[in-house]
Amino acid sequence: MFTINAVDKSQLEKIWQIIDNKAKPVGSLGKVEQLAAQLVTILSSSKLSSSIKASSTKKSLEKLTLIKPTMVVFCADHGINKEGVSTVPSEVTTVVAQLLLTGTAAINIFCQQADIELHIVDAGMKFPLPEDERIINQRLGYGTQAMHEKMAMTSEQVMEGFNYAKKLIGEYAQADCNVIGFGELGIGNTTSAAALMAAFTKLPAINCVGRGTGIDDETYHRKLALVEQALKLHQEQLDDPITTLACLGGFEIVQMCGGMLAAAEKQMVILVDGFIATSAALSAVAINPHCRDYMIFCHKSNEQGHQAMLAHLESEGLLDLGLCLGEGTGCALAMPILKSALAFYNDMAALN
Amino acid sequence: MFTINAVDKSQLEKIWQIIDNKAKPVGSLGKVEQLAAQLVTILSSSKLSSSIKASSTKKSLEKLTLIKPTMVVFCADHGINKEGVSTVPSEVTTVVAQLLLTGTAAINIFCQQADIELHIVDAGMKFPLPEDERIINQRLGYGTQAMHEKMAMTSEQVMEGFNYAKKLIGEYAQADCNVIGFGELGIGNTTSAAALMAAFTKLPAINCVGRGTGIDDETYHRKLALVEQALKLHQEQLDDPITTLACLGGFEIVQMCGGMLAAAEKQMVILVDGFIATSAALSAVAINPHCRDYMIFCHKSNEQGHQAMLAHLESEGLLDLGLCLGEGTGCALAMPILKSALAFYNDMAALN
Repeated sequence: MFTINAVDKSQLEKIWQIIDNKAKPVGSLGKVEQLAAQLVTILSSSKLSSSIKASSTKKSLEKLTLIKPTMVVFCADHGINKEGVSTVPSEVTTVVAQLLLTGTAAINIFCQQADIELHIVDAGMKFPLPEDERIINQRLGYGTQAMHEKMAMTSEQVMEGFNYAKKLIGEYAQADCNVIGFGELGIGNTTSAAALMAAFTKLPAINCVGRGTGIDDETYHRKLALVEQALKLHQEQLDDPITTLACLGGFEIVQMCGGMLAAAEKQMVILVDGFIATSAALSAVAINPHCRDYMIFCHKSNEQGHQAMLAHLESEGLLDLGLCLGEGTGCALAMPILKSALAFYNDMAALN
Repeated sequence: MFTINAVDKSQLEKIWQIIDNKAKPVGSLGKVEQLAAQLVTILSSSKLSSSIKASSTKKSLEKLTLIKPTMVVFCADHGINKEGVSTVPSEVTTVVAQLLLTGTAAINIFCQQADIELHIVDAGMKFPLPEDERIINQRLGYGTQAMHEKMAMTSEQVMEGFNYAKKLIGEYAQADCNVIGFGELGIGNTTSAAALMAAFTKLPAINCVGRGTGIDDETYHRKLALVEQALKLHQEQLDDPITTLACLGGFEIVQMCGGMLAAAEKQMVILVDGFIATSAALSAVAINPHCRDYMIFCHKSNEQGHQAMLAHLESEGLLDLGLCLGEGTGCALAMPILKSALAFYNDMAALN
């Protein structure tokens, strides 16, 4: 369903020569240089494809820039939350989604600051908001099934989610957007993300399950037991990534996963937020490893397990600010550093 | 010479109540929340002073904002560099200063991105540039003396540097600027910063001396021996911070130190860049501990010793991007996060 090209790494040596020839000690801008190299590789690949298609040959002569940065927050609920794996009930997903509409949630504010357009997708909240043109309706149901009792969703629902996401990303790409952030909102979704992490990394559940938004010991142990139960229940079905998503995923995670695959297909820069968005990235890489080339892991979350998940994807994360809010907040806070990295590549003086 | 008030911490509990009452799990924005609390404390103290002076009572009713962010890069040379403690000769200070004037150095680009005004001070380069209105002339000499042979400068020169810096900061404050970044440029200045670190923290020199912009083993051991020699030579004079600066400091470090004290006196937000700027901060705190309240340590440098220096100042640093370029680059990259932290405080929805 997704045809993804690896980025064109033939230019990487030349890109590093340009970076190393900037008027500064070699390596002295650390991660900013690595970020620049990755961004330039992605954006050059993308331009190359464009000019091959001859649709916009002129573009390849322009400076590489991030165009129409867009953040999409996918909102959905989780059947397993009936077991009380979070500090709050599923109604809160809807309450926070409502807050996003009013423009006063953390992600609204950070997107304003970084000049990022924010879109909100209802991927399947348990308590949907009244129809509103500001909410993109991509509902796959009224929350998932409880994954420790049955499959969270059907494989058809996974594919439906992928289709929705592919269509949406296609629209952004059509409008020339070349950088897209993936954020989420869904009470109970660290439980699903931890189960997916265990399934894809083969790490024991105890290394994957964390405290989410601050659960107590009793809740933590219940959450861990439920993840172990879900993994055991579905153990025969965890070889195929689509089925794994159907067994353990969430509607928002599935759509982020599909969205990342679609964005990689369009050779866009993919910004991955925290623990839950990274579980979607992990799933996407399991489906097609080439999409990893397009991903920037914007921050290392405070959630237990995120560091190991990032290590599995060979990243350290760009920021380390102790965030664990989700919504794409880490992507929005990282955006100015992306812009600065690209400006460094484009505009800083060369030694010779 | 500096009358510095501690920030008004009586409001801190109220500020944290406001932060904890935002519509999100408590603590879920990690360091962004701590940053917001510090910024609000500084800016409220500053407004309180303004309204007491009755010069601008209206201000205290406005939202707290960062006004006219300004970065000052202090440039100077170091006598000890004749011993080859760096990868490059002192001439390079002038070459890079020239680059700053052309607007194509890293700090120019990052300041443009973050909408920061950039000022360049010649605090005492060995090879001064031709007079130029874009360079603020605050020269204390043609580079310092070699600190392992004699005092780097006289105590009078330290005071002269403080006076220069105080006058400059006063002008920014007069123009309503309330946030100022301190960056530097000076070949060989990690050697001076390491010696100051050893003097003020009482840590052994080996924990303070690092690789600067990438020196080899032989140079490293020479650098370490020179720092130890300087510390031994001046050991009887290291009880007083002003004399310590005279023995071991650099002209740019002295002026950054004076500038930080002056900025604290004016209750401005002080942005501290990497290893060398932090050695100036360490000196300033030794002179007047209250100025610590106004300091934000923008990044943890790759330079060996910076982490321990930050720990001594009870900070972890905001960013951790592997930078070791100086020039104030860490401050400029951190600026958007400061703005987002303040916007979060000002604009995010409250629970009740």
